[in-house]
Amino acid sequence: MNNSTSLRVRLPVLVLLMEVVFLGLFAGFVTYDDNANAKFQNNETNPMDNSLYRDYPFFADVQVMIFVGFGCLLAFLRLYGFSGMVFNFLTATFTIQWAILMQGYFQFYSDGKIHLGVINLLNAEFACAVVLISFGAVLGKTSPVQLLVMALLEVPIFALTEWAVLKYLKINDAGGSILIHLFACYFGLGVTFVLYRPSLNDGHVKEVTSYQSDILSLMGTLFLWVFWPSFNSALTLKGDDQHRAVLHTFIGLSSSTMTAFALSAVFNKRGKLTMADIQNVTLAGGVTVGASVDMMISPAAAYALGIMGCTACFMGYRYLTPFLARHFRIQDQCGIHNLHGLTGLISCTAGICAILMANEETYGPSMYQIFSHRAPMEGDPKLLELQQLIPGLMPGLGRTAKEQAVYQVAAIFSTIGAAAVGGVLTGFALKLPCLATPSDEFCFDDELFFDVPSDFEFTQLLDDIEIFIMG
Amino acid sequence: MNNSTSLRVRLPVLVLLMEVVFLGLFAGFVTYDDNANAKFQNNETNPMDNSLYRDYPFFADVQVMIFVGFGCLLAFLRLYGFSGMVFNFLTATFTIQWAILMQGYFQFYSDGKIHLGVINLLNAEFACAVVLISFGAVLGKTSPVQLLVMALLEVPIFALTEWAVLKYLKINDAGGSILIHLFACYFGLGVTFVLYRPSLNDGHVKEVTSYQSDILSLMGTLFLWVFWPSFNSALTLKGDDQHRAVLHTFIGLSSSTMTAFALSAVFNKRGKLTMADIQNVTLAGGVTVGASVDMMISPAAAYALGIMGCTACFMGYRYLTPFLARHFRIQDQCGIHNLHGLTGLISCTAGICAILMANEETYGPSMYQIFSHRAPMEGDPKLLELQQLIPGLMPGLGRTAKEQAVYQVAAIFSTIGAAAVGGVLTGFALKLPCLATPSDEFCFDDELFFDVPSDFEFTQLLDDIEIFIMG
Amino acid sequence: MNNSTSLRVRLPVLVLLMEVVFLGLFAGFVTYDDNANAKFQNNETNPMDNSLYRDYPFFADVQVMIFVGFGCLLAFLRLYGFSGMVFNFLTATFTIQWAILMQGYFQFYSDGKIHLGVINLLNAEFACAVVLISFGAVLGKTSPVQLLVMALLEVPIFALTEWAVLKYLKINDAGGSILIHLFACYFGLGVTFVLYRPSLNDGHVKEVTSYQSDILSLMGTLFLWVFWPSFNSALTLKGDDQHRAVLHTFIGLSSSTMTAFALSAVFNKRGKLTMADIQNVTLAGGVTVGASVDMMISPAAAYALGIMGCTACFMGYRYLTPFLARHFRIQDQCGIHNLHGLTGLISCTAGICAILMANEETYGPSMYQIFSHRAPMEGDPKLLELQQLIPGLMPGLGRTAKEQAVYQVAAIFSTIGAAAVGGVLTGFALKLPCLATPSDEFCFDDELFFDVPSDFEFTQLLDDIEIFIMG
Repeated sequence: MNNSTSLRVRLPVLVLLMEVVFLGLFAGFVTYDDNANAKFQNNETNPMDNSLYRDYPFFADVQVMIFVGFGCLLAFLRLYGFSGMVFNFLTATFTIQWAILMQGYFQFYSDGKIHLGVINLLNAEFACAVVLISFGAVLGKTSPVQLLVMALLEVPIFALTEWAVLKYLKINDAGGSILIHLFACYFGLGVTFVLYRPSLNDGHVKEVTSYQSDILSLMGTLFLWVFWPSFNSALTLKGDDQHRAVLHTFIGLSSSTMTAFALSAVFNKRGKLTMADIQNVTLAGGVTVGASVDMMISPAAAYALGIMGCTACFMGYRYLTPFLARHFRIQDQCGIHNLHGLTGLISCTAGICAILMANEETYGPSMYQIFSHRAPMEGDPKLLELQQLIPGLMPGLGRTAKEQAVYQVAAIFSTIGAAAVGGVLTGFALKLPCLATPSDEFCFDDELFFDVPSDFEFTQLLDDIEIFIMG
Repeated sequence: MNNSTSLRVRLPVLVLLMEVVFLGLFAGFVTYDDNANAKFQNNETNPMDNSLYRDYPFFADVQVMIFVGFGCLLAFLRLYGFSGMVFNFLTATFTIQWAILMQGYFQFYSDGKIHLGVINLLNAEFACAVVLISFGAVLGKTSPVQLLVMALLEVPIFALTEWAVLKYLKINDAGGSILIHLFACYFGLGVTFVLYRPSLNDGHVKEVTSYQSDILSLMGTLFLWVFWPSFNSALTLKGDDQHRAVLHTFIGLSSSTMTAFALSAVFNKRGKLTMADIQNVTLAGGVTVGASVDMMISPAAAYALGIMGCTACFMGYRYLTPFLARHFRIQDQCGIHNLHGLTGLISCTAGICAILMANEETYGPSMYQIFSHRAPMEGDPKLLELQQLIPGLMPGLGRTAKEQAVYQVAAIFSTIGAAAVGGVLTGFALKLPCLATPSDEFCFDDELFFDVPSDFEFTQLLDDIEIFIMG
Repeated sequence: MNNSTSLRVRLPVLVLLMEVVFLGLFAGFVTYDDNANAKFQNNETNPMDNSLYRDYPFFADVQVMIFVGFGCLLAFLRLYGFSGMVFNFLTATFTIQWAILMQGYFQFYSDGKIHLGVINLLNAEFACAVVLISFGAVLGKTSPVQLLVMALLEVPIFALTEWAVLKYLKINDAGGSILIHLFACYFGLGVTFVLYRPSLNDGHVKEVTSYQSDILSLMGTLFLWVFWPSFNSALTLKGDDQHRAVLHTFIGLSSSTMTAFALSAVFNKRGKLTMADIQNVTLAGGVTVGASVDMMISPAAAYALGIMGCTACFMGYRYLTPFLARHFRIQDQCGIHNLHGLTGLISCTAGICAILMANEETYGPSMYQIFSHRAPMEGDPKLLELQQLIPGLMPGLGRTAKEQAVYQVAAIFSTIGAAAVGGVLTGFALKLPCLATPSDEFCFDDELFFDVPSDFEFTQLLDDIEIFIMG
């Protein structure tokens, strides 16, 4: 047992300190939003029109993804299942609270208060997904204290980036390809770059799965797969936009899954399937359709995006991840650069194409709802004309398709830049002496952090025997 | 390692080929339905009236059943858990895409296009349930390539049968007892009849469960149990019909579960419970209430149907399955004839009784909505009278109860016939030399198809020791 | 093998007998409620206004909690996983049917019939939660027959208490802190008090977890955690009340989870985390916010309640549970007194404070909807005035805040009293000679009740070796 990994002091101090801070901030700054405030109900309020009924079903699905889906997926290592699942639980809970406050300050703040409804929780779960994706890059070489510090730093950087991009660049990003997947990926890569450990490049003896851990991880994949349409459509406009988001996500995931099976068998030396491919690469399509998920791209385009994303992701796992580890000091434990980075870039490119091709012939007047920044400006006579067709259409910025595309490109680069810089700085913070890193020998080992049941030692013994026998 | 099981060539070729075909068909023939098309939104569209909000909650529940529920349930064998779960994933994904196209062609085709919305996905998931049920009959003796070929052939035969029965016989089958359960069962039995392997009748040494695989399989059962009310009610009329479908399914499952526990203990030699009964027989009630699930049969009738279905299913597992295997060459691995065939027949009989007993006294005028083919024909003065009471009532065929019952019987026989013939033909296709069958020694063995973790060999070693010790 | 544990006679006799009784009662007394009855649909019925669409989403979430969440959570012992999960399944199914009848008689009875809709199922699932919580106190020392007898007795005592408290004391208890958690806890303690077995105080050699059972149990926790907001809000008023219930439950659970991690690390001798804490104590916040879950307590108060409830629960596990077992003969196997009793008491106290502080300034006129017994009586001119502001406001009892608080206190004491007395009497019934108790040596052993797979004996062998080696 290595004392540097003891959780007795640092973890409780950090957690309890943050709880006091959060409680103080909640007490000082958080109040109910109008839909959750009894005072604002009157004789014209229809309870069933409450925003709860629009947001909660999607929120519940995303909850399952975050806590069960991610949790099981991260429990894929034989001797690191507790850690994967439990630290996911802790990090997610911590992150959501912190994101409620940070995003609240940037996006839901008025009259000196953060106004809280289920929509804030939903946004916070998206911020949480960002942190958990980044977590995948450093799985196994970070203690829970480091994970919390990482979340503590990543959330405000993310909330600030999100706010700045949405407020100043005004982009279309319904499925979060830019702000969730690219940000999370490059932040995580920044952190892992700083935490580089050469010894890990040759694979760690404990970095192995077991039959049960592989099944558990696959269950995580299935929960993510099943509810991904809810994730991608949760924050779109209601109505036909959300309907398309569900369809495209489902189609993209489906074609991506078939492709993953085919590639897994082709590239396996013995013509068998590799569980890691089934667990990860099948999901690539869900990310790839993200940026254009609510647009009129056609079902076939969603299908094609699933195939492309999956292929890029698969090749990334096979060739790019080892290459980055050896030559660029970027050890990407779960391959987030493949599943979120490469697919995110394809997704953004597709989104830009969809923006450039959008026209009134395809979308009708509701084009100016989906591409709200292309709506005519206040005072433009065309605005009044459109408002006849779509009551409640908000005035926009009168952008052309090309202008919008330029802003999308700007958003991509600034998000990646902010994420990478933020990640590197966070990595340095995690190396501060007060945040002990478990030493190399101990990584991927639940025994570091848990009172393990007695059969765990037995499992390790079996493991040692196997390692001995199989070389 | 048997080369005939290598997935390196055939699986990728088949999958990628089908992907290209699907992509071509999507590009050529699939467009959005009106609820998913931006162009058809106008100033009278209320986004919250979009069909998405009626269909998606049921779709999400069925997704969990198909991917998690079926997946875990099929992972009940100690050395075949990867295969059960992963091939369920692959087959389901493949089937849904193919069913979108096939059912789309038969049921959602107009102006040269298949119109796609979440309702199509929901229908495709039902077609997928058909294939996965049939899959249960041949589990363990089919390679993934054979499974895909089976799905490839079963989906069009199913879509054609479904279309013909609905269009020409015009039946009531809200819970899918005829078109889902009976079709799936007799198709699967047809396939397994052709794939008969005498050596399997004495039980295979690897056809054993483990403590963990039994628990995993039970989790699958629980997910199916919990969401079955959504499955049975997903395609009923909205309102009171759907409400009754939920109630009846829940009641039928509940009484079926209690019966399964009682029978399991009675018939066990040592007075213990058998996990296989808990995993399978408990679900019989969900199928048995299917055909009459939306009718006014009374809660007590649903309760009685659960008991009857469960009893038939239990006795089927105990006596009929071994009998069919020995004397009729029908090896029904998961006992689908008990859980879907016998219960489906009881369900259909109950449905016919419910149709014969339906009258305006019990149903009020909405009888002509539920039994829409009994509504008066266009021009009948009674139609106008009824339309006063139920605005929007569609003209029907003016069938009497007895006429409707005759059509139900016709649908049962023609569905079983089409399924059995289709299944047998599919079985012969699966025996074509180009679709290698894993040889007998290798069945129920994940190692055939997967890069298994190192503890799998150890599990097998333990297994061999046990087999040796226990005889 | 001990014959006294054979399930061959008593289990089937009891189950089949009760099924006949239930079927008779369903046939004689259960009919559809207006929302599920075809006859009551007319030309003014909008199908989408059916109560199904308000209740079913919450019902489906609670189903997952009861069958999957509780089931997995109770499967935390290495050699008792089948029993935990399967007896949860049986008990839950049995209880829900019985509760439909019992609660139906007390609460949904008119014109000689119980009127059945999804709302009844939802109420019955709450009654089921009560029984399953009590089950936690006696896990491992009761046979399935005893569990069913316990459910058979607990349900009517609960339904009567619930009816009497709601009808005569008229309390606010949206999250069920009094009627669910306190009742369940003190009933379970009453039963376990009578079933006291001194030998268990020193820990049973088989009372150990395994790596897999700990992970399974944690999955149960996660499903409970994720859907707890649905549980706490299922029976509140629709609209802003339900919205607040979701927010408070989520916040309370989150702060409770962070606190549990911190305390677990502080109090562990070696500075590690204890899985049992993560599995149980994290959930304390969900109970603690219950009594005031729909009130305007502020998000910060929900946060503080989560911290307080978690701390009390944690300390209870550490100090109170062993103390009660040694000195008061109360062996509380799963620690329900910590997770439901202590937290329930804190919750009730908070609820009373919230009632005392409620005023029109904070709530607006809708105060008289949430605190419906404080609404003016029929004939009071203030009632008419309020009905202008809130159409449909029902006349109340004109209670003051203090009066309401007194009734809450009365409800707490009478519920605890009824539960404890009922539990003790039930305990004596379970000791009747005809309900054999498995003898001490055999407790926590799946082999008593199941045909276990062959690797179970192997697991036991390993276990024996470990016990031998580790002392």
